Amino acid sequence: MADGRVERGNQTRRTVLERTMSIASVDGLEGLSLGKIASDLGLSKSGVFALFGSKEDLQLATVRAAVEVFVERVVRPVREEPAGLTKAWRLCELWLEYSGHRIFPGGCFFYGVSAEYDARPGPVRDEIAKARADWTRYIERVLDEARTAGGFRQGSGADEVPQLAFEIIALMELANAHSVLFEDGSAYERAGRGILARLRSVAAAPDELPERPPAIDGPTAAPTSSAAAS
Amino acid sequence: MADGRVERGNQTRRTVLERTMSIASVDGLEGLSLGKIASDLGLSKSGVFALFGSKEDLQLATVRAAVEVFVERVVRPVREEPAGLTKAWRLCELWLEYSGHRIFPGGCFFYGVSAEYDARPGPVRDEIAKARADWTRYIERVLDEARTAGGFRQGSGADEVPQLAFEIIALMELANAHSVLFEDGSAYERAGRGILARLRSVAAAPDELPERPPAIDGPTAAPTSSAAAS
Repeated sequence: MADGRVERGNQTRRTVLERTMSIASVDGLEGLSLGKIASDLGLSKSGVFALFGSKEDLQLATVRAAVEVFVERVVRPVREEPAGLTKAWRLCELWLEYSGHRIFPGGCFFYGVSAEYDARPGPVRDEIAKARADWTRYIERVLDEARTAGGFRQGSGADEVPQLAFEIIALMELANAHSVLFEDGSAYERAGRGILARLRSVAAAPDELPERPPAIDGPTAAPTSSAAAS
Repeated sequence: MADGRVERGNQTRRTVLERTMSIASVDGLEGLSLGKIASDLGLSKSGVFALFGSKEDLQLATVRAAVEVFVERVVRPVREEPAGLTKAWRLCELWLEYSGHRIFPGGCFFYGVSAEYDARPGPVRDEIAKARADWTRYIERVLDEARTAGGFRQGSGADEVPQLAFEIIALMELANAHSVLFEDGSAYERAGRGILARLRSVAAAPDELPERPPAIDGPTAAPTSSAAAS
C-alpha cells in the first residue's frame, strides 16, 4: 500500500515536471502555476500541492529536472571517452544536437530561463546560475584534461582553457538563439565551424578534428507553443 | 492649446517608455501593465490608455524605444568614422560598454526580451527579431566596408564576413549573460580578447588593432530591481 502511494507520487512528479519543463522552455518559469498544471493534466490539486508545496519549489524542481535531461543528452554520452580535443568536440556536437533537435520545445532550457531570472535575485536565479556554472566548469575540465593528455600544441598554457571555454559556449548559445528566433538552422553550422576553428587553433594534431562540422538539422517545424507541448 | 496637449502627450509617452524599458530589461515584456504603470507614475489611466491603446502596442513601443537608445549609444558614435577594422572594433567596444554600464538595469535589453519571446510567434517576437536582424546586418556591413576598403588580409573573401559577425555577436552576448547572471565583470575582458583575436586574424594590418581590450567596467552595484528602476 505505502509503496504504491510512493510510486504513484513519483509518477505524478515526473508527469508534472515533464510538463513544466516544456512550458518553461517556451514561456519561462514565472508563469508556472501549480493549480493550472494540475487541472491541465487532470490531476488532483491537493496531490500536486502536496508534492511541490509552493510555486518556487516547483520552479526549482523544474530547473533540477532540466539539468538531469541535459546531463543525460549532452554529458553522459561522452563521459567515458578518452581525454582529448575529439571528446571536447563531441561534447559540443551533442550540445548543438540537443538545442537543434528541440529536446525542449523552446530550444535550450537554460538559455531562456537565464535571461528571465538573471537580474532577479533569489533561489531560482541561484539554481540557474549554479547549473550554468557547473556546465562552464565541465567544459573547462574536458578541455583541461585534453591539454594534460598532450592534446594542445606546444607552448599552450592552462590559462588558455577558460578563454577557449568561454568562446565555445558563446558560439553554442548564439546558435540556439538565432535558430529559435529566426528559425534559421544554418546558425548551427556557423557555430560548429567557429568551434572547430577554435579547437584546431590550439590542437597539437589539428587533423584529428574534422575540418567542417556535419550538418546539424534544426527543428523541422516552427517552435511548438506551450499549449501544444506535451 | 493643441500644441500644449501634443507636447504633454509626447512627454507622457517618453516617461512611460523610460519606465517600461527599465522594467522589461529586468522582468521582461510580458508582465507590463498599462494600468499599473499609470498608477506607479501617478498618471491618468485614461491618458496612458489613449497613448498606447493595448498592452501589445505598449510592448511594441517599448521595443522600438529601446532600439533608439541602442542606436544612440552604440551605432551613432561610430557612424561617421572611416571604414575599417578599427571602426568595427570601436563598435564592439561601445556594445560592451552599453551592456557593462547597464544603460538598461537588466543588461542588454534585447538579450532578455529575445529569450522571452523567441518561441512565441506574434508581432512582439517579429519586432524583436527585426531589431536583432538589423543589428546583425549592421555589423556585417561595417565588416564588409572594412574589407572593401582593403582592411582584410590578402585572399579574404566576402563569405568570411557573416561568419565573423556571428562569432563577434556570440562573444558580446555571452559577456552580457555572464556579467548579469554571475555579476562577473571579467566576462567583458574575455569577450574583448576574443573579438580582437578574430579581427586581428582577418586584418591586413593586425597591429593597427589593440593587442588587448581596455578594462571595461561592469556595473558597480548588483542588478537594480525593477521596483527601484526609475
